[in-house]
Amino acid sequence: MSTKAETVVASPRADAPGWVSGSLSDRFRAMRSLTEALAAPLSDADATLQSMEDASPTKWHLAHTTWFWETFLLRDNTSDHHAYHEDWAFLFNSYYEAEGERIDRFARGMLSRPTLDEILAYRRHGTDAMGELCDREELAPLIELGIAHEQQHQELLLTDIKHALFQNPLGPAMWDRSEAAKAQPGEPKSRGWYEHLGGIALLGHDGDGFAYDNEGPRHRTILEPFALSKTLVTNGEWAEFIADGGYESVGLWLSDGWAWVKEYGIEAPLYWRDDEQFTLAGWEARDPAAPVTHISYFEADAFATWAGHRLPSEAEWEAIARGQRPEEERLAHDPMAGNQLDVPASDPSWQIPHPRVEAQGDGLFGNCWQFTGSAYLPYPRFRIADGAIGEYNGKFMSGQNVLRGASCATARGHSRPSYRNFFYPHQRWQFTGLRLAKDL
Amino acid sequence: MSTKAETVVASPRADAPGWVSGSLSDRFRAMRSLTEALAAPLSDADATLQSMEDASPTKWHLAHTTWFWETFLLRDNTSDHHAYHEDWAFLFNSYYEAEGERIDRFARGMLSRPTLDEILAYRRHGTDAMGELCDREELAPLIELGIAHEQQHQELLLTDIKHALFQNPLGPAMWDRSEAAKAQPGEPKSRGWYEHLGGIALLGHDGDGFAYDNEGPRHRTILEPFALSKTLVTNGEWAEFIADGGYESVGLWLSDGWAWVKEYGIEAPLYWRDDEQFTLAGWEARDPAAPVTHISYFEADAFATWAGHRLPSEAEWEAIARGQRPEEERLAHDPMAGNQLDVPASDPSWQIPHPRVEAQGDGLFGNCWQFTGSAYLPYPRFRIADGAIGEYNGKFMSGQNVLRGASCATARGHSRPSYRNFFYPHQRWQFTGLRLAKDL
Amino acid sequence: MSTKAETVVASPRADAPGWVSGSLSDRFRAMRSLTEALAAPLSDADATLQSMEDASPTKWHLAHTTWFWETFLLRDNTSDHHAYHEDWAFLFNSYYEAEGERIDRFARGMLSRPTLDEILAYRRHGTDAMGELCDREELAPLIELGIAHEQQHQELLLTDIKHALFQNPLGPAMWDRSEAAKAQPGEPKSRGWYEHLGGIALLGHDGDGFAYDNEGPRHRTILEPFALSKTLVTNGEWAEFIADGGYESVGLWLSDGWAWVKEYGIEAPLYWRDDEQFTLAGWEARDPAAPVTHISYFEADAFATWAGHRLPSEAEWEAIARGQRPEEERLAHDPMAGNQLDVPASDPSWQIPHPRVEAQGDGLFGNCWQFTGSAYLPYPRFRIADGAIGEYNGKFMSGQNVLRGASCATARGHSRPSYRNFFYPHQRWQFTGLRLAKDL
Amino acid sequence: MSTKAETVVASPRADAPGWVSGSLSDRFRAMRSLTEALAAPLSDADATLQSMEDASPTKWHLAHTTWFWETFLLRDNTSDHHAYHEDWAFLFNSYYEAEGERIDRFARGMLSRPTLDEILAYRRHGTDAMGELCDREELAPLIELGIAHEQQHQELLLTDIKHALFQNPLGPAMWDRSEAAKAQPGEPKSRGWYEHLGGIALLGHDGDGFAYDNEGPRHRTILEPFALSKTLVTNGEWAEFIADGGYESVGLWLSDGWAWVKEYGIEAPLYWRDDEQFTLAGWEARDPAAPVTHISYFEADAFATWAGHRLPSEAEWEAIARGQRPEEERLAHDPMAGNQLDVPASDPSWQIPHPRVEAQGDGLFGNCWQFTGSAYLPYPRFRIADGAIGEYNGKFMSGQNVLRGASCATARGHSRPSYRNFFYPHQRWQFTGLRLAKDL
Repeated sequence: MSTKAETVVASPRADAPGWVSGSLSDRFRAMRSLTEALAAPLSDADATLQSMEDASPTKWHLAHTTWFWETFLLRDNTSDHHAYHEDWAFLFNSYYEAEGERIDRFARGMLSRPTLDEILAYRRHGTDAMGELCDREELAPLIELGIAHEQQHQELLLTDIKHALFQNPLGPAMWDRSEAAKAQPGEPKSRGWYEHLGGIALLGHDGDGFAYDNEGPRHRTILEPFALSKTLVTNGEWAEFIADGGYESVGLWLSDGWAWVKEYGIEAPLYWRDDEQFTLAGWEARDPAAPVTHISYFEADAFATWAGHRLPSEAEWEAIARGQRPEEERLAHDPMAGNQLDVPASDPSWQIPHPRVEAQGDGLFGNCWQFTGSAYLPYPRFRIADGAIGEYNGKFMSGQNVLRGASCATARGHSRPSYRNFFYPHQRWQFTGLRLAKDL
Repeated sequence: MSTKAETVVASPRADAPGWVSGSLSDRFRAMRSLTEALAAPLSDADATLQSMEDASPTKWHLAHTTWFWETFLLRDNTSDHHAYHEDWAFLFNSYYEAEGERIDRFARGMLSRPTLDEILAYRRHGTDAMGELCDREELAPLIELGIAHEQQHQELLLTDIKHALFQNPLGPAMWDRSEAAKAQPGEPKSRGWYEHLGGIALLGHDGDGFAYDNEGPRHRTILEPFALSKTLVTNGEWAEFIADGGYESVGLWLSDGWAWVKEYGIEAPLYWRDDEQFTLAGWEARDPAAPVTHISYFEADAFATWAGHRLPSEAEWEAIARGQRPEEERLAHDPMAGNQLDVPASDPSWQIPHPRVEAQGDGLFGNCWQFTGSAYLPYPRFRIADGAIGEYNGKFMSGQNVLRGASCATARGHSRPSYRNFFYPHQRWQFTGLRLAKDL
Repeated sequence: MSTKAETVVASPRADAPGWVSGSLSDRFRAMRSLTEALAAPLSDADATLQSMEDASPTKWHLAHTTWFWETFLLRDNTSDHHAYHEDWAFLFNSYYEAEGERIDRFARGMLSRPTLDEILAYRRHGTDAMGELCDREELAPLIELGIAHEQQHQELLLTDIKHALFQNPLGPAMWDRSEAAKAQPGEPKSRGWYEHLGGIALLGHDGDGFAYDNEGPRHRTILEPFALSKTLVTNGEWAEFIADGGYESVGLWLSDGWAWVKEYGIEAPLYWRDDEQFTLAGWEARDPAAPVTHISYFEADAFATWAGHRLPSEAEWEAIARGQRPEEERLAHDPMAGNQLDVPASDPSWQIPHPRVEAQGDGLFGNCWQFTGSAYLPYPRFRIADGAIGEYNGKFMSGQNVLRGASCATARGHSRPSYRNFFYPHQRWQFTGLRLAKDL
Repeated sequence: MSTKAETVVASPRADAPGWVSGSLSDRFRAMRSLTEALAAPLSDADATLQSMEDASPTKWHLAHTTWFWETFLLRDNTSDHHAYHEDWAFLFNSYYEAEGERIDRFARGMLSRPTLDEILAYRRHGTDAMGELCDREELAPLIELGIAHEQQHQELLLTDIKHALFQNPLGPAMWDRSEAAKAQPGEPKSRGWYEHLGGIALLGHDGDGFAYDNEGPRHRTILEPFALSKTLVTNGEWAEFIADGGYESVGLWLSDGWAWVKEYGIEAPLYWRDDEQFTLAGWEARDPAAPVTHISYFEADAFATWAGHRLPSEAEWEAIARGQRPEEERLAHDPMAGNQLDVPASDPSWQIPHPRVEAQGDGLFGNCWQFTGSAYLPYPRFRIADGAIGEYNGKFMSGQNVLRGASCATARGHSRPSYRNFFYPHQRWQFTGLRLAKDL
């Protein structure tokens, strides 16, 4: 079991699009700019929308991520700190109970005030105030956490606004796609498999570079021989599943999944309509060769059963992601590679976040987060950290499933082989997809 | 039983503030301007908010009222008419089933697009297109209906945005109130009573001037001797009701009302907080002498029981409003008088819509709509009109209660003695108040 | 306007089936026996069932009616009274807030204990204890109220157990119907009309004989010329309504009614299945000539609109019921006549409660309660009585509609021309039906 | 890692109370009798109660378990088989989709018919019909499954009727407890710990004796050094948790758990009231030394956090249960030992199912099922069996947690070291308890 792949985290390819190497300070500023660039196409009204309790308005993401810096970095580490606006902590705290009362989650959509401009000014103030702190070495771990935190909200910002715009019968686009950039139906790849002989694997982050608390402690686990698909399940394969009565065949579904299908009348992935799907560029033709996305765990599991395969465990997924292998495969497993989120630009080569036929080969990262069959639970000897930061991950460890990889909306450089994303089994507004596994 | 008071409708006082006499065309344009003046303090984001299913965003009101002109006047009466935007009928139809499919009511709050500017352009286009039609005599009845319709939405616009801004913990103001204009605690008036000897009364609109279909046919009814309070119940009286355990005394409440109190933990009128209340100028001190407002039918009924009186019937209310009486009383019953909605202006004498100690004497109109004990039902021989316009009132005739008068948010000139407003017994986001009655 | 018909109340026909004239004591005992006779076909388990919050178990009806006698008669009027069982008041109080805490309404279905036998013993004890009180003249009004109260529960017992047995896929019968007694398809009667010339009518109970508080005070009202159908709408007519798309035509429905149809997928009266309907004798063929029953107010109103007619007001209905008319019509309006509830017996002529082609002519009473278009509201100068008895009717005066007449499950002698029954507009588990009206 | 303990399953102690060794036929008949003995104290009405959707009526359990034998054994293996009653499959199928339509789960409580007597006759018929089949060797595996299935329903029967009787304000007892048998406050045991040095453990059933499909395949897992408490958490310890503000301290709770506490106002285990708890013998004083029971996973997790420990994983629990150890400890781990369900009898030594201070030493089985921190998921290489039997366990593998051990309501002999029970994290109407673990 090699840990080589992980060194990638510490030394990203200098030429990776959208990746800023440089100093922590440079990376902090580049990350802040990316957040703002994502919000740039939106009006104050767009940025105020909240379409469901799971989602938040763009303005809230913009402000909350600034509140995070203010509360966990600036408050305790700058002299003469005073809150930018005394009432805003109430508005922009997310779930940190230790940080006091906060607005009802579903009332976030009522915040027409403060305005988008006021929030952007708040952001500039926060970014500037952080200036000097980025050079203080003892704060680096907390700053790395803040960067990772804001990158998570970049992805949520994109998936939340997509869900909000989808509610509008006009189907508005966040970005317009040039004719040239419109998807050309791709060639589906034939499925290949990464094989693993089983044995004792070392899993979890090993302390080199930043990682969330939930990625450790590093620990051993036993794997039986298995194989993991080199490709994600495609829209075309999903259409076959539907045509074969997948959504009407109770025998394919978990009991809770079937109840969900019946209650909500589910008959296709979220955002599907006839031969189209809703994207951040509005309604577009669906490419059968592109990876399917916006599916729930229930759907992923039912599809895998239908296909005669299964979901991988998170240990299996991570073992492949870390695996020692020939140079040509190394690249494919590079967590910096694949279809991930880069800086929006007028550059016509910039891609609106959307799963595409995988141009980059058989990498595990990019396009869609991939469901595993593993419940989101603490690793052996996991301990919740003290204080508000300790609320970060541990308290969500029930009822959710782990997803691995990275999506087209994940900031490039944010993920790694040990990264654990998690959602409830019915949720599907994220860029979620499916990579099959099988026993050997 | 005199019908004199009604002639007021046909000949409004020329000097009534905010009232445009002039031609139908002048009145149409003045009314349209008022709608836009009400929205003027709001940003695109403010105007996009929808706080509950009962309420609509400001933008929706602005567009829907234009859709109404487009659909019921312009479409059939202008040559070469084509829809301003082919998809907008779906967005801005309210409930006219005959006019086809429409957006889910609660999704109105997701309409960040079209923008406020685009909707204002739509309004200008609609107003201009109506230009020539205002002179066509045969269209006058439908245009009068359109004016009345849009005036209703002016009031809803105000009550809906008030409810939306209230959700914001910052308590934002729609208008800032100058120090000079801040409420000076008034002197409560001692309660006096209008007495009526009973007999056969003629009720309902008599065909002179515009009225809604639900105000007719004119018909006879029998009244027993009764009295109607000259004053509205005040905040101070309501505070006594609370202090006396009004919200905890099951014996005061209708069965459905008590269930509502328990389910929602009701313990004061909507918008009360300590000694303050939320207004269109933000949180302000509550004036004990001012009329109480934002109460439900359930609360009004419980208060009346507590006070040893009762709600008037709508027939009683209307009989007083129409009554022949000395000239000094005539004025007090003028439907053009009282605290009603006028044109917002930089003029410092303009009043932000809010109930105030009644400066205008003992009039029945203004400050608050007044609950009656009458269910909202058709008058004898009422017939629903054919076509989409027929959906206007008739289909709502179950489960609601009639309110009479006019509020501080009712466009001056909109109401009249026969006017029937109606809401469900639990609703209280309108400027609702209470005028007691008793048997003689 | 004659009040002659009302004397019927005071002097029921001696030969009316099931009617016990005799002394108050005799009537009390006969009434108590009828309650028990209705429960006789049921097992302890049957009698424990509660199928919805609106309904109560048979055992609960048996016990609650006894609790009523115990609480309002025996407790204060017998020496040395002590509660039969100290915990049972909590179980068997219905909604009398003044009488203290009570079991959650929907938990009534959990009362396997006390057993049916224990409750029948409680009944015997109560009936015996009442023995001497029936002769005390000053208690007669309260005893009349108690009799009327228990008769109401007789009807609820039948409609509630019908609803409970209907939930059982086996479709069990409460009574078996002999072959001979099975419905022979009847001949529908052609619709005739009672005409009324309008004028001032005197309505409400006039103090001669027992009546509920809500039937008074007697008061005048004005009627316009109208006609009331001599017959109830039939199953056959309803089938035409369905065939003509009645349940799919939004234009026929009140707005709240249409929402109800859509939410619950309503497409026929309750208890209909193909050509059958569920009865107290199980599933049976539906007779097209028999009155339709188990319809909601919403359905009744939509049907009337479809038929080009309307619902009568309660004043209209009562005016016809009281009208002076030839002797042959007199009988038809006899509140003792028609298909009403008599004492179950082995006598093969006894009829299982179910609407039948009207054998008794054109009477207003029997078969089904008839919806009026009137909201259930207090009559002019109505005052709620003091104490717990005052909770009887007044607190339900919001959101409900008045029904008039009597049904096949109403104890013969219980109803009268001034009787006001009331239910919410969506409820239809009672024997509700429809008698059309029209303007003249 | 020894597998010795498992041989216990194959050779139960001959003197275990309530255990019938003998032939399969003898065991089948004894098991059937036990089911009926459990229902013996109940009336038809008691046995008809359903208090919530999670629970079923006693009659349903009695019939469903017979339907299981009829459907999976008798139908295919007896000549001339015909259904006992053609409509009953619809009533008594639980969730086997492959076996066709079935009654809505919450409608089970409406089955007053068939009667308890009719269902007992159905049981006798089924038991007799099974007579010859018990000797057919090839059917033995399926018969073992049927026995295990019915034993599960024995436990559900007890927990479901307990929940139903609890709804009754009278607090009725299923069995009366003799004075002699009433709990004498015991002496709490001081907590000791079973220690484990970690390493590779073999888990899952090994094919010797009956086990459910979800207990296999046998597989290896890695354990870190840990300790498992010898005792269950007690009522007294739980009272300390409450006194210390356990239910008000958000920091102790999982996020979903805290939401559950707030929504339902949870402040103690189910069935607690002052110093009492509701038992199958009615309301009784609570013994501080007895194991706490009727707690949810959320509560168990919060308590463990408060106590500075954690829940064990199911692998840890099983490793201790299988551990090689001195003879005196062997007994303690005997799955036949401890407070489990035996045959009710007039024998005064028979114990009404209820957790008691552990008389049998430090065994892992008995008193309460014990929450683990493990999600209920398939073991590596688990495959769902074909056909209806395949629905048995696999389709429930999402959102639930594993419990291990056996409770006072588990038929003695039903459980084993590899046994996996599972419930949703909020459910607590089972006899659930808590055994702490810690890292070494």
